Amino acid sequence: MKIDGTHYRSLWWNSENHVLEIIDQRWLPHEFRVIPVATMQDFADAIYQMRVRGAPLIGATAAYGMALAMAEDASDANMDAAWAFLEKTRPTAINLRWALDRCRAALRPLPEADRAAAALTLAHEIADEDVEINRRIGEHGLALIREIAARKPAGEPVRLLTHCNAGWLATVDWGTATSPMYHAQDAGIPLHVWVDETRPRNQGALTAWELGKHGVPHTYITDNAGGHLMQHGMVDMVITGTDRTTRRGDVCNKIGTYLKALAAHDNGVPFYVALPSPTIDWTVSDGVAEIPIEERDAQEVTHVQGLTDGGGLGTVQVTPTGTQGGNPAFDVTPNRLVTGLITERGVCDASEAGLSDLFPNFAKAAE
Amino acid sequence: MKIDGTHYRSLWWNSENHVLEIIDQRWLPHEFRVIPVATMQDFADAIYQMRVRGAPLIGATAAYGMALAMAEDASDANMDAAWAFLEKTRPTAINLRWALDRCRAALRPLPEADRAAAALTLAHEIADEDVEINRRIGEHGLALIREIAARKPAGEPVRLLTHCNAGWLATVDWGTATSPMYHAQDAGIPLHVWVDETRPRNQGALTAWELGKHGVPHTYITDNAGGHLMQHGMVDMVITGTDRTTRRGDVCNKIGTYLKALAAHDNGVPFYVALPSPTIDWTVSDGVAEIPIEERDAQEVTHVQGLTDGGGLGTVQVTPTGTQGGNPAFDVTPNRLVTGLITERGVCDASEAGLSDLFPNFAKAAE
Repeated sequence: MKIDGTHYRSLWWNSENHVLEIIDQRWLPHEFRVIPVATMQDFADAIYQMRVRGAPLIGATAAYGMALAMAEDASDANMDAAWAFLEKTRPTAINLRWALDRCRAALRPLPEADRAAAALTLAHEIADEDVEINRRIGEHGLALIREIAARKPAGEPVRLLTHCNAGWLATVDWGTATSPMYHAQDAGIPLHVWVDETRPRNQGALTAWELGKHGVPHTYITDNAGGHLMQHGMVDMVITGTDRTTRRGDVCNKIGTYLKALAAHDNGVPFYVALPSPTIDWTVSDGVAEIPIEERDAQEVTHVQGLTDGGGLGTVQVTPTGTQGGNPAFDVTPNRLVTGLITERGVCDASEAGLSDLFPNFAKAAE
Repeated sequence: MKIDGTHYRSLWWNSENHVLEIIDQRWLPHEFRVIPVATMQDFADAIYQMRVRGAPLIGATAAYGMALAMAEDASDANMDAAWAFLEKTRPTAINLRWALDRCRAALRPLPEADRAAAALTLAHEIADEDVEINRRIGEHGLALIREIAARKPAGEPVRLLTHCNAGWLATVDWGTATSPMYHAQDAGIPLHVWVDETRPRNQGALTAWELGKHGVPHTYITDNAGGHLMQHGMVDMVITGTDRTTRRGDVCNKIGTYLKALAAHDNGVPFYVALPSPTIDWTVSDGVAEIPIEERDAQEVTHVQGLTDGGGLGTVQVTPTGTQGGNPAFDVTPNRLVTGLITERGVCDASEAGLSDLFPNFAKAAE
């Protein structure tokens, strides 16, 4: 998407210097820094230290890491070593393993001499595929936004609400939940986005940064505010992303998503979830009962990072010293609260029937 | 309540120095400071700068301010001047005006020579009445907690969840939502309290401080987490306070309360609201439609205060510079989501019939 008028992806190949470049997201939303990822250690650091974040972006980054490994030493042994070295950087990110497996499966049959070029081509493909999936999600979501806009007086903005950052920074481009927003903005539909802060890690600040840089009007609110806004008719539609969607359409996403879904349901506000099909877990049905929820470091809750008066990044402790914090990182929104799923193949009901209709082969394979 | 074993109120009369002393809450939860309130300007500052906060505590503080004014100059003119001087410090706090009106009505008929002593006695009365109301709320709430405890295996804690700080720091003692907790703790019932952070002002940190100092086990969580905990059977009961309760039992409380009530309802968790009867607004019925919601400074949302690495208080900016923030401070929980209201006269349904039964005279007077 655009940053002050210039188009960016969250990573890109610098063909002049023959190196991957990324936006170093550790400094966002306060500083925009681009860095090269030039060594295998750079790749591991980029993923582990969350210079890149978001499952699709991590997957694409890992593919470029595999390409570098093949350029350095295209042997089977080095391929396996690179797989293991990159895979351990974020062991819970499903796309990381998926991308590495895909690279290894494609490269293994090739003669060593061809592997470096093929690996780079494959990394480009994986990145481009992600962009294309998200572009299609955006087109399907755009149709939903158009319907709402058509029911409003001309010029009145469609008011969306989103939680966390399912934005282009978490993918290669477009994002998932944000893709319909960018498509609508680019199509000239007046928009206003309520951006949930998303404690504890305040990914809403990344969403606000993205939207601001692309020129989408928005307001940053606490996670507590959305219910009140919906009660007063100030939200036309909620769109979130998801980390994992079950076969029947339960949605595991950033902690707090469930509360917004409840409020949307209570106030008749459509609640949509945007997802690329790789995040569907066909092996799981009942999300609340079956998905284990990661409990993260309590310091994310008791401390908050931001820009200090001095202009640097700093952290303040909000709680009394010694207070115990609890930090479940995700929650599950049952399918009954989800109006629809926006996928790259179209919009469907959050149900086994809905997903199977769009993805019959996957559904069958999982049976 | 107790601070490390010593009993405190949030304000008290130092009869040796003939001066009111308060806990200066601006430094909590990071530092415990007691200061005298010795001049009329001190009183205005204490209320305006939120060294004291919470409607009941502000009311009691104002009554002591009126006592000081009468000690300095007991004339009608000075009484009116003190009323106006104190009243303007927090114009939206209903208890402030209520306490000042009550003082003026009681003092006006008295000879000037008697007013200083009478005003001080009245201030003590107002403070003691608040303590007594909250003590009774605690007894009635304790009965509810006992019922839950009785259904559990011996020794297993009753797990409560609360939002914001309806604690003793917001009253003279006991608090409202916390009073049942302190009563249960003092009665030896094992407890565990989930403390909502309560963005944007993080009053959960005050609740965590209170509970910690009194020895009540608790965990500080983001506002996003409560729904997930309820889905997984980890909350037995929610108790919150309220800033204003309508005739039919709609509850206007800190922003985000409504989301917790939705989650409690969705998971069959009892949702109780503790309130002293003065917070019932008999003139309002439909809270969502009729109660205007204060929109506060967006900086409360975009910035967070806490303890810096250096040990002092500091603020960090979470959002990108220039991001617009929205900050509705309260929301309304419709009575259909409220299991019961815990008042000083007992527990009742959140309905016009329930409240009228407990408070027939008030209900009648408002007709």
